[in-house]
Amino acid sequence: MAEVVAIKHAPEGPVTTSFQDGILRITLSKPPANALSLAVMAALESEFGRARDDRDVRVIVLAASGKVFCAGHDLKEMTAHRADADRGRAFFEQTMAACAHLMQTIVRHPKPVIAEVDGLATAAGCQLVASCDLAIASGEAAFCTPGVNIGLFCSTPMVALSRNVSRKQAMEMLLTGETIDAPTAREFGLVNRVVPREYLAQVVNKYAQTIASKSPLTLKIGKEAFYEQAEMGLTEAYEYASRVMVENMMARDAEEGIGAFIEKRHPEWKGE
Amino acid sequence: MAEVVAIKHAPEGPVTTSFQDGILRITLSKPPANALSLAVMAALESEFGRARDDRDVRVIVLAASGKVFCAGHDLKEMTAHRADADRGRAFFEQTMAACAHLMQTIVRHPKPVIAEVDGLATAAGCQLVASCDLAIASGEAAFCTPGVNIGLFCSTPMVALSRNVSRKQAMEMLLTGETIDAPTAREFGLVNRVVPREYLAQVVNKYAQTIASKSPLTLKIGKEAFYEQAEMGLTEAYEYASRVMVENMMARDAEEGIGAFIEKRHPEWKGE
Amino acid sequence: MAEVVAIKHAPEGPVTTSFQDGILRITLSKPPANALSLAVMAALESEFGRARDDRDVRVIVLAASGKVFCAGHDLKEMTAHRADADRGRAFFEQTMAACAHLMQTIVRHPKPVIAEVDGLATAAGCQLVASCDLAIASGEAAFCTPGVNIGLFCSTPMVALSRNVSRKQAMEMLLTGETIDAPTAREFGLVNRVVPREYLAQVVNKYAQTIASKSPLTLKIGKEAFYEQAEMGLTEAYEYASRVMVENMMARDAEEGIGAFIEKRHPEWKGE
Repeated sequence: MAEVVAIKHAPEGPVTTSFQDGILRITLSKPPANALSLAVMAALESEFGRARDDRDVRVIVLAASGKVFCAGHDLKEMTAHRADADRGRAFFEQTMAACAHLMQTIVRHPKPVIAEVDGLATAAGCQLVASCDLAIASGEAAFCTPGVNIGLFCSTPMVALSRNVSRKQAMEMLLTGETIDAPTAREFGLVNRVVPREYLAQVVNKYAQTIASKSPLTLKIGKEAFYEQAEMGLTEAYEYASRVMVENMMARDAEEGIGAFIEKRHPEWKGE
Repeated sequence: MAEVVAIKHAPEGPVTTSFQDGILRITLSKPPANALSLAVMAALESEFGRARDDRDVRVIVLAASGKVFCAGHDLKEMTAHRADADRGRAFFEQTMAACAHLMQTIVRHPKPVIAEVDGLATAAGCQLVASCDLAIASGEAAFCTPGVNIGLFCSTPMVALSRNVSRKQAMEMLLTGETIDAPTAREFGLVNRVVPREYLAQVVNKYAQTIASKSPLTLKIGKEAFYEQAEMGLTEAYEYASRVMVENMMARDAEEGIGAFIEKRHPEWKGE
Repeated sequence: MAEVVAIKHAPEGPVTTSFQDGILRITLSKPPANALSLAVMAALESEFGRARDDRDVRVIVLAASGKVFCAGHDLKEMTAHRADADRGRAFFEQTMAACAHLMQTIVRHPKPVIAEVDGLATAAGCQLVASCDLAIASGEAAFCTPGVNIGLFCSTPMVALSRNVSRKQAMEMLLTGETIDAPTAREFGLVNRVVPREYLAQVVNKYAQTIASKSPLTLKIGKEAFYEQAEMGLTEAYEYASRVMVENMMARDAEEGIGAFIEKRHPEWKGE
């Protein structure tokens, strides 16, 4: 399938992007490990930030080049800082803060983010997948949180992981450090679908196009409300979500969407 | 299977009921959509309220007539109120408040509520199923939260949905608006069982009869405690549940039940 | 497979232990019911307490002898106390407090605990399994929370159960009191794996050995953080886990582990 991809903005370096039909692909482009060095995390933050303010971007796909989706933090970069006067503490704090911020940038992002996973996602790489709203994997994808093997428990990855999979399943990954394949990840709830590698981009695009056809305002309202209400008790969640729903009803896009539904025509979103 | 159904109270209108052997069936009876207009929600509240105080009612089955279990809110009713001076805001607030109250009426109800789903449950209809304690579906049942298609994200339905299914699965339903079939709903945790349509009522009745044979006091204590402790941290939950358990032990039905178990005889519940 | 088992400490009575290669087996040894009388709970607390302070113990396996893993509380013991002046209230409070404490001892224990289940686990017995970090079952294992059958809802067991399995699945077990088999328990998330009985101990040992090969300090840090962050909102969880991760990075075992990984050699843990 030949595609003409309009590149709105072409970053050089460890993260590249392409844009078409409302869908922004952000690609980790530093194989073989696609490690989350400070520079890579800053580049990702930059692209997600740019996408936040770009009205043309309706859905984001987070992908990677090479056989490893993302191998987590850059252990060599971290180890080099053990020579610092503070034995690396300040650098580790900076790294963890950047990582926690990046993951929350994805969760709080006003636009849906889909992980397209075609290789190994380990540690903070697994956390990246868990932090996306949806994840589609090829049969070659695999997932692990192996920090325990190197004396560094995957404590921040598990924040995202344990909000995706059940306790015993998360604990098995965390305590043994072993790798699960894509079908297991789907069974555990870490990915939504597993498709043959040759159809991965096509299926991801289908999801992205489906979502890109919705009102951007509605998606923004709903995604934000989803993660907010998830942290509330039932009564508070209903009070909050009811207010959200009323505001959503008062928006022009809901009036248009409901009108179009009743009149059996296609809605035209204004994003307001 | 010919059945003589003693109807304790026969409401006319969009919600009908029948009663037999401790089991109250509340049926949405306004096909084809069984939409949750204000009138329907009020009728449901009324029947759930009546059942709360009726000692004969031990279990409630929530069913629907026609091919659609429940299509969610009544969009025409809501749209008509856009002509109000406040563009409908007051009416939307009233609708959302009534809906949130109804769902919590089910969750807080002292008697177990089983959804019997033999058709499409969409938006607030899907929320109804998610709010019941148990749900049994036929192979013809299907579920979706398609508000995103009409510019109105299913923000209140997702309060119930996201407390039943995992995050990525909930997000897939919410962001795409697509419909899942009954086996998928079972896999996701939204329904307990899927049975052939011709056996649906029979299987639901079997569940209902099993539960109706338990002490109503014990069911009330346990159901309330279940949803209360679900919102607590572990330490608080154990403190709370331990107090509940001691009070339950002091009740006559626990003394009778444990005595009967030790003496290998059938217990006789007094509900106290 | 003939094994020489070094028994560090050989308790007599309802709970026995054996020790080999860093793995402590604690076995409920009062068949047929292995009921959680006060004496049994005290014996378990004692063994878990001893294991906490024993640097040689790296992983704990909780097993049982006989066809019943654990039948829950000792109903005869409880019933006998109905003759007390307070109709048993003080004794029930003592029992519930001991039980809630024991379950939290497992959750808060610095060393991973694996349940090895080869029979029926009911009520507080099911709670024991749910409270362990991992659970491996034979095909002969089965699980239920049948308190509702005897007028005593499984309110404390459900604290653990509902943190392992989804709401509708938990409610089905709690409201019907019915028993699920091992494959269903795996599907629900209550156990990690189901293996043929003749390989159960072998598979459990493989898990235990894998985990015992990790840094004890790292396991302690990670297990504690897992259950702590599970009760937090996302922002708080990331702040907390980031601090944990930095402290973990500063520990000698992380420096050794990461160094060994980079240098492609086996790490040597010091547990500090």
